[in-house]
Amino acid sequence: MHPRQSLNVTAARQVDGELLEHRFTLGDVPGILWTPAGETPSPLILLGHPGGLDAMYPRLIGRVRGAAADGFATATIELPGSGNRPPLPGVDQARGDLRRAIGAGERVPDDVVDRLVLPLVDTAVPEWQATIDGLLALPQVRGPVGISGGVISIGVRLAALEPRIAAAGLFAGSYVPRTILEEARHVTVPVHMLLQWDDAGNDRQVALDLFDALGSKEKTLQANLGGHTGVPAHAGEDAARFFARHLG
Amino acid sequence: MHPRQSLNVTAARQVDGELLEHRFTLGDVPGILWTPAGETPSPLILLGHPGGLDAMYPRLIGRVRGAAADGFATATIELPGSGNRPPLPGVDQARGDLRRAIGAGERVPDDVVDRLVLPLVDTAVPEWQATIDGLLALPQVRGPVGISGGVISIGVRLAALEPRIAAAGLFAGSYVPRTILEEARHVTVPVHMLLQWDDAGNDRQVALDLFDALGSKEKTLQANLGGHTGVPAHAGEDAARFFARHLG
Repeated sequence: MHPRQSLNVTAARQVDGELLEHRFTLGDVPGILWTPAGETPSPLILLGHPGGLDAMYPRLIGRVRGAAADGFATATIELPGSGNRPPLPGVDQARGDLRRAIGAGERVPDDVVDRLVLPLVDTAVPEWQATIDGLLALPQVRGPVGISGGVISIGVRLAALEPRIAAAGLFAGSYVPRTILEEARHVTVPVHMLLQWDDAGNDRQVALDLFDALGSKEKTLQANLGGHTGVPAHAGEDAARFFARHLG
Repeated sequence: MHPRQSLNVTAARQVDGELLEHRFTLGDVPGILWTPAGETPSPLILLGHPGGLDAMYPRLIGRVRGAAADGFATATIELPGSGNRPPLPGVDQARGDLRRAIGAGERVPDDVVDRLVLPLVDTAVPEWQATIDGLLALPQVRGPVGISGGVISIGVRLAALEPRIAAAGLFAGSYVPRTILEEARHVTVPVHMLLQWDDAGNDRQVALDLFDALGSKEKTLQANLGGHTGVPAHAGEDAARFFARHLG
């Protein structure tokens, strides 16, 4: 995909009286934009996810409805290597190496994390930037733009290098390459970072190091007891207030 | 002071149309109770502070007003060794040892932390328990009882051993003896813990260890960039919502 690839809205429907859903493509990348009915143009929150847009749809729509109630448009795109998109070279092998390390009770080697995460970040970040280009050209959407959740390394690099991102809600729930900790120093926008304290697939210390590394003058880490999918409802509400403060 | 010492209200005044202030003594310990006008009996939040009730009053009253707006009575007592109370044996010397260690850029030795903090905790906790006894006997106050801020080691022990405490808002801003980390395992009530990420007078790693040690099934750590007194307004609001969820 070329970053300058244009965005084409392919279908639109009313989800209910409060919410409109617009399916789009950006080259061969499928995406969805949701806009609150009767409030346009709306500031935009990009919704991250772990990949697999169709499977994630039910969980995304809850976040979409909350954001729409606060006056925000939301959008997401399929991740490289997920859904119907072609696999990323080397990532399957890295995932196998990751499983072997975890199965053997070993610390996951840095090079495995790099081979697993960096191809995803390298490919996804320009796609998200092209998505911002395309969405801000639509009459329903305006800046400022926030990012919320998803693969944290994508969020960090996007926040570090994309000047249209005004606030970043990060979810520390995936392995982080060392180079992303360096890139985190260039993040200057307000950050609200969620960490599940007992997330088996996450390195807690790296998450704390990442929070420490972020260059933002305003940053909050909220850690809650529980595993990856156990984020309590009040944490979602606190994150929503973070976006309302900085994008509203 | 004997824990069974009775509580005597010595003066009462209306702060404004919303708030009543009751000065009391518990033996020779001075204290203040604030109750929201027209809403009695109210659940109680005990307000911790670093000692020096008169000097702390302006900062306390802000927390008092916020809690009263949410329907809570609040109360506090002077700490042992602060205000007009006699010094605690050995604590002055421990404070000198602490300053020397910090001045020399050394890690503060465990025994200095013990000598600084444990006499305070040993004396204060029964006083806070007697305060709960006395306040719950007043017609303006009822349970459940929460604790909010102050010397975190006092809060941890009080939450661990006092069954009338139903929720604990802890502020990680002071040195924590190792034994308090053990006591933290006996805390089972919901905890909302605030940590200032760059608090020079606090050991960040011990704060994270303390959060990890807490036995509560529901616990949240919120860390914000900044020093000891730089808690952002939104963090206060999040703490208020924590108490509203668990005591309201």
